[in-house]
Amino acid sequence: METLSDTILSQVIRRRPENSHKGTFGRAVLIGGNAQYGGAIIMSAQAAASAGIGLLTVITDPRNHSALHARLPEAMVVDWQDFQLIDEIQKSADVVLIGPGMGLELDSKLLLQSILNKQTASQWLVIDGSAITLFSRQNKPLKYPERTIFTPHQKEWERLSRLSIENQTLERNHLRQQELQASVVVKSHRTEIYTEKNIYKNPLGTAAMATGGMGDTLAGIITAFIAQFPDKEQALCAAVYLHSLIGEDLSKNRYVVLPTELANQLPYYMKHFEQ
Amino acid sequence: METLSDTILSQVIRRRPENSHKGTFGRAVLIGGNAQYGGAIIMSAQAAASAGIGLLTVITDPRNHSALHARLPEAMVVDWQDFQLIDEIQKSADVVLIGPGMGLELDSKLLLQSILNKQTASQWLVIDGSAITLFSRQNKPLKYPERTIFTPHQKEWERLSRLSIENQTLERNHLRQQELQASVVVKSHRTEIYTEKNIYKNPLGTAAMATGGMGDTLAGIITAFIAQFPDKEQALCAAVYLHSLIGEDLSKNRYVVLPTELANQLPYYMKHFEQ
Amino acid sequence: METLSDTILSQVIRRRPENSHKGTFGRAVLIGGNAQYGGAIIMSAQAAASAGIGLLTVITDPRNHSALHARLPEAMVVDWQDFQLIDEIQKSADVVLIGPGMGLELDSKLLLQSILNKQTASQWLVIDGSAITLFSRQNKPLKYPERTIFTPHQKEWERLSRLSIENQTLERNHLRQQELQASVVVKSHRTEIYTEKNIYKNPLGTAAMATGGMGDTLAGIITAFIAQFPDKEQALCAAVYLHSLIGEDLSKNRYVVLPTELANQLPYYMKHFEQ
Amino acid sequence: METLSDTILSQVIRRRPENSHKGTFGRAVLIGGNAQYGGAIIMSAQAAASAGIGLLTVITDPRNHSALHARLPEAMVVDWQDFQLIDEIQKSADVVLIGPGMGLELDSKLLLQSILNKQTASQWLVIDGSAITLFSRQNKPLKYPERTIFTPHQKEWERLSRLSIENQTLERNHLRQQELQASVVVKSHRTEIYTEKNIYKNPLGTAAMATGGMGDTLAGIITAFIAQFPDKEQALCAAVYLHSLIGEDLSKNRYVVLPTELANQLPYYMKHFEQ
Repeated sequence: METLSDTILSQVIRRRPENSHKGTFGRAVLIGGNAQYGGAIIMSAQAAASAGIGLLTVITDPRNHSALHARLPEAMVVDWQDFQLIDEIQKSADVVLIGPGMGLELDSKLLLQSILNKQTASQWLVIDGSAITLFSRQNKPLKYPERTIFTPHQKEWERLSRLSIENQTLERNHLRQQELQASVVVKSHRTEIYTEKNIYKNPLGTAAMATGGMGDTLAGIITAFIAQFPDKEQALCAAVYLHSLIGEDLSKNRYVVLPTELANQLPYYMKHFEQ
Repeated sequence: METLSDTILSQVIRRRPENSHKGTFGRAVLIGGNAQYGGAIIMSAQAAASAGIGLLTVITDPRNHSALHARLPEAMVVDWQDFQLIDEIQKSADVVLIGPGMGLELDSKLLLQSILNKQTASQWLVIDGSAITLFSRQNKPLKYPERTIFTPHQKEWERLSRLSIENQTLERNHLRQQELQASVVVKSHRTEIYTEKNIYKNPLGTAAMATGGMGDTLAGIITAFIAQFPDKEQALCAAVYLHSLIGEDLSKNRYVVLPTELANQLPYYMKHFEQ
Repeated sequence: METLSDTILSQVIRRRPENSHKGTFGRAVLIGGNAQYGGAIIMSAQAAASAGIGLLTVITDPRNHSALHARLPEAMVVDWQDFQLIDEIQKSADVVLIGPGMGLELDSKLLLQSILNKQTASQWLVIDGSAITLFSRQNKPLKYPERTIFTPHQKEWERLSRLSIENQTLERNHLRQQELQASVVVKSHRTEIYTEKNIYKNPLGTAAMATGGMGDTLAGIITAFIAQFPDKEQALCAAVYLHSLIGEDLSKNRYVVLPTELANQLPYYMKHFEQ
Repeated sequence: METLSDTILSQVIRRRPENSHKGTFGRAVLIGGNAQYGGAIIMSAQAAASAGIGLLTVITDPRNHSALHARLPEAMVVDWQDFQLIDEIQKSADVVLIGPGMGLELDSKLLLQSILNKQTASQWLVIDGSAITLFSRQNKPLKYPERTIFTPHQKEWERLSRLSIENQTLERNHLRQQELQASVVVKSHRTEIYTEKNIYKNPLGTAAMATGGMGDTLAGIITAFIAQFPDKEQALCAAVYLHSLIGEDLSKNRYVVLPTELANQLPYYMKHFEQ
């Protein structure tokens, strides 16, 4: 097991090549946000944009489009019932994030299945929030490509792994990760990352971050990092670490850190650690 | 009668336990905001989020959802006509705030009655704004659980207590509070708090805070404090005091203090007084 | 003719009485904003709120409600087709502002007529923007109460006064103001104020303020000042002067001053000049 | 070929004449933003407003109006299906920008054709984004007036010029510009500007600007500069240069520069270089 440190940021966040364009930094597609939980996908989108994604499309309930644009005109939006357009957008994606605020309705489940079916082996997939719970509810496990990252919090991990929270030891978690054949980020006040060969422990995190939306924000950062940086395992670790680092820093003079405020700090922190 | 001071903040605002998650800091459900007064519940929500609530759901007219999300994606939203979902959400609540901008329509009254009927003895209830007026208009008094806090301004208190403003003395107010069997915050330029055994006087407050929305903001802070901190009477006192303290501080260089600006300061002040 | 100076601010902007509430600082009703020009009434509302109005209701096309709330939850909103509610709201107003972004449609004209008919002698009325043009187009002049202020820019004043811009001399303007039996603010890079007995010249103003929305912002400040301060003629002068003073100050490091940015400065400037 | 420098800013950005009004600084009409790409035209609008345009109307899908107003009440809005109003608005324009986020649908194409047909010889036209692609797809070339500026990125230029990116040499680009009889801005990490007689090279630009929306922002700045400043060729050069200059400066402490953040800096930079 490796404990993460600032080193991971310097390793991952590279000076951008001068001759580049927005396509160079990846195309992310974020899927989530039903009528009740629309804020979740908005927070993921803000985080992805501030974490440097090149192009960003958000597929969500149309009731969320106006608020998303009011906060982040940098994002493109698609109605999550527009299956034809979703297909086309998914094809162009380097990374797909599915789940934040997606809800557990039948429509959400069907959309999840459709996205999984069409995901190709060269694309990365981040499965978060409601999508993890939808996964856990399937009798017959859903298929997903190899390049998949699950980002459950402990309760969601309980559902997905069938390990109760007290049984979520490093060993058992890793075993279960091997069975899943996907990377797993188990979020808690000391988040752990499980990949095929390694376990990483995040030494940072603060109770000031224990507020709704922090996980959605992390999912957005992970998505942007996977899209931009070549070593995907390191990129995942860097995203987790940076999220907590900013949260800790902001908590020095804030009792609670609002997720959108954390996201706003990303460009400055990334510049600071850029090599 | 006890006059509040900074001490109440240090007593109430405790360092957060390290091993915690968003559920640790409470689930608040905020109900209010018709088509005309939607801004009120938006302001309550911003205050509750900045005051550190763990999870926040706002039940309001759907016409307010987009503006709420544009300001505060951290909140979840529910259509206030969706009774089935409201039931489910209310069950999960630690604290319910009802009233800001709710209006006096029949639908608002029916929703108030339904919420009161379903509130359990273990849940806290904050009754503010229009909901207090709705209360006052009932011939047959509505029932409510013991863990209830009314937050009227003087005019609303007149309606609820049948005491004209000039007759609102400490003694008469306390007597009426005893009959109500609920805590009462009588808001004025020197707000008073009445509980079963005590009367507290807030020595702070400034005319720069005399602007629409300040009460909605206070209701949000009270809700978040009751949800987070174990001693509910102290938490209530701390919320009232902190609201005025920030208002006074901001008024040092502002002729008028906008409620949303006050809310933004909460994380910093709470950190400052954290013990 | 009197040239305005900082003195007018100190005379008008009084320390608020300690024992006060939001009602103490006036109720303003702002009417305007069709589907095309909704931003205008939003900017008026922001200015009125930041200039210290106690309670603020905006009557506008419902398509503008969400954006208004997203910017300013402090305002209440009413559908400008809801005549019954408009009647009720107007009755409670200390000052009515009508015109910003109202448009010239038949519906706008009918609403203007209805508001004029129901305005009482004790209420103040500010007529701005489209409402001035609507006025000018009537063959039979519309009636309005004595406590009325017109705030045309030079082109609108041309329409209302039938004086071409080159003929808008102090004398002719004053003569026309006497016929109108209302105060008139003729907006230009050196705005003039005409009242029954006096003419005031504003020595401030900068080309950095020559951008769409500045007039709407001024109308909001005038409305809030008339509502709050006892000497209405002085309040009008102070509003005009302060608007330009802030504009000039901001222009020291900005090539163009956006109206909403100007409005945000109001609380600080008002505090500075408070006596 | 001329390499741009700070000099171009001092030459173009003139102190505003004191006796002026919003009409003095031009009327811009921005057309674009379908349901998917609405953020693009919002970003163009923010840039145009901050770059000092006098009056600004945005013609876009009505689904974008609320978000636009929530960000920028300074803009007026028109439904892009309201052909009669569009006609009227276009007549009053000094500069029309068409294309950001417009999409490639049939309706977008018809709107483009209609705008081109009605553009007069005295008005300037900026053709950006989707509108360039729509152009490239016509078998029979669309007609446009002489005062036209195309602002393609390299891939769009490939479509319009039929020159593959590797073949986009200065000479070939210039030749193709001569055939088009319009100015051309070929956007890349080192943007080039082609006019009838000159080629300008922008020495600035940074990979931190390689994010969705940067081009929309540039289009807004170009539009505002063409509308305000008398020498149109120099105004175009200054817009391109200033966009990159701000981007580079912001990138000194940000890993990625969000387009809306860049736009917010415009008033300060323009003031700094004002002569």
